[in-house]
Amino acid sequence: MAFTAGIQAQAEQPSATGLAALTALAEDDLKKVNRLILENMNSPVALIPQLAGHIIAAGGKRLRPMLTLVSSKLCGYEGERHLSLAACVEFIHTATLLHDDVVDDSELRRGMATANAVWGNKSSVLVGDFLFSRAFQLMVADGSLKVLEVLSRASAVIAEGEVHQLITTNNTATTEQDYLDVVSAKTAALFSAACQIGAVVAARDLEEEQALQTYGRNFGIAFQLVDDILDYSAHQAELGKTIGDDFREGKITLPVILAFHRGDSEDRAFWRRCLEELDQKDGDLEHAIALMHKHGALAESLERARHYGREARVALDIFPASPVRDALTRVVDFCLERAY
Amino acid sequence: MAFTAGIQAQAEQPSATGLAALTALAEDDLKKVNRLILENMNSPVALIPQLAGHIIAAGGKRLRPMLTLVSSKLCGYEGERHLSLAACVEFIHTATLLHDDVVDDSELRRGMATANAVWGNKSSVLVGDFLFSRAFQLMVADGSLKVLEVLSRASAVIAEGEVHQLITTNNTATTEQDYLDVVSAKTAALFSAACQIGAVVAARDLEEEQALQTYGRNFGIAFQLVDDILDYSAHQAELGKTIGDDFREGKITLPVILAFHRGDSEDRAFWRRCLEELDQKDGDLEHAIALMHKHGALAESLERARHYGREARVALDIFPASPVRDALTRVVDFCLERAY
Repeated sequence: MAFTAGIQAQAEQPSATGLAALTALAEDDLKKVNRLILENMNSPVALIPQLAGHIIAAGGKRLRPMLTLVSSKLCGYEGERHLSLAACVEFIHTATLLHDDVVDDSELRRGMATANAVWGNKSSVLVGDFLFSRAFQLMVADGSLKVLEVLSRASAVIAEGEVHQLITTNNTATTEQDYLDVVSAKTAALFSAACQIGAVVAARDLEEEQALQTYGRNFGIAFQLVDDILDYSAHQAELGKTIGDDFREGKITLPVILAFHRGDSEDRAFWRRCLEELDQKDGDLEHAIALMHKHGALAESLERARHYGREARVALDIFPASPVRDALTRVVDFCLERAY
Repeated sequence: MAFTAGIQAQAEQPSATGLAALTALAEDDLKKVNRLILENMNSPVALIPQLAGHIIAAGGKRLRPMLTLVSSKLCGYEGERHLSLAACVEFIHTATLLHDDVVDDSELRRGMATANAVWGNKSSVLVGDFLFSRAFQLMVADGSLKVLEVLSRASAVIAEGEVHQLITTNNTATTEQDYLDVVSAKTAALFSAACQIGAVVAARDLEEEQALQTYGRNFGIAFQLVDDILDYSAHQAELGKTIGDDFREGKITLPVILAFHRGDSEDRAFWRRCLEELDQKDGDLEHAIALMHKHGALAESLERARHYGREARVALDIFPASPVRDALTRVVDFCLERAY
């Protein structure tokens, strides 16, 4: 609680409307994107729209496709190509989620009804493949080799990042650099590509394209850092949200790395037992959170997230001030404030 | 044995060299393709080349990339683009294999050391994703939207076919049409695309492109039919090869469908117990094979495979006779003769 209050006092400004401003700008386009998503996930094989519909309907904020939509707006784009490309971005994201939820025999299942828990690992994998292929078909229909280059590269980088994460899981020797490499690849690559595409469809010069890439990449890193902090957040728990998923799976995130390195040998034995051997007892998650507070691991992780958030905002300075630019900077604040 | 001998007598002509002729034509190119494969599966994340290398090194005949190489030769192509596109075809095939081997909790594991058995489901899925993305990166580097269209469509169709197969598994109500739909999608689509690309890089007219598509599609169906027959082949068992994998998993292939429909109620109860409930005892596989022989299910399946083989060969009639055309027709015979 002390941690939460302390952080709140530092908050630059409240922006409860940080997401709302972006959503308002993207709203009309997003309806069209949702229609495109529904149309393109269709198949005579009924399980495909069923399973894909389950995850896409549950699929939250549509943050990544919104970034494509609003980035193209920032670049003054007035055509229609951004719509199907935003759908591609969401398909790639959804395929990644489906594949990320595949469970190994050796792993714990989460408490939630993920698609793989309902329909099995194999269905999740294959429907993910379908969505991924469909995304490439949509890009081909769009006809831009540049877009295809950006998103095929992002897809390869995401897969590399996911494999890298797999190697760091259950390994307390994971370094901060490993963690940043994983986050840059598995999360920030798609944020970056989603934003870059907005400049590409608008045929803007390289400077604007790179600015949007930089914004997306830094926003993506900040977003993932906050996500990893929230998994240990007492406030999240108060709101009735699940916490401790990463802990139960033995994922090595920045709060863990910091608490591990700042801890004594007893602490380290605790982390090894819980995260390497996955030998966890009642009260272990609470003890982990207490250790993180003791060593300032959550506050420090949030400080890092803020750093990347600032880098994201600064990258947009080359664009003239406008409500569109404002919405893109405020959604970064919104993301950071989720951590309180 | 009676079945084997009977079929052997019907064989049109021996073509032990059916694969050798194709391999000889593709040999030099294939070495370059193998180098491209090794180069492009590389990654700073060491598990990726390790796991991909495991499956690609074990990866048999390289039949699909050879089809691209030799199809382009048939079309008189003399450039270098067919090399990286053949590598794409092999990457897509390998990704499909990796994803196909992912095991559900509810399923039996095969006796063999598949990649997922060694490295886990999750690694197999993610490395498959990497290879799939890398294939698209190679296509983008090639720069042909037509090739991208052909292979992104094939990828979506393959995924649809795999999901369709999942639905038919353990379901004895599966029809011949369901089976043909599955085979056309999961196997024949990539054979067809691999051959079509040969015409596309050579910039040949639509007639030749379609002829190669038709050849590939029919060859693919024949190939899969033979594969499904071999899983119940006493001769395979004599050669020390594994049989009964499909039976143990409850896959509903054409020999099963024919034996089921031609059987009496006692037979059907047997098939339901073994393939729907997966309640299998010692001797069940032998009984299944005996029922197939009794009802001519394997001979009839082979007759169908021959039909598609003929369609494949006939499709190439628009090309003038040549050693290259000859190699493409003889590899179909080779495939059919695997069934003896």
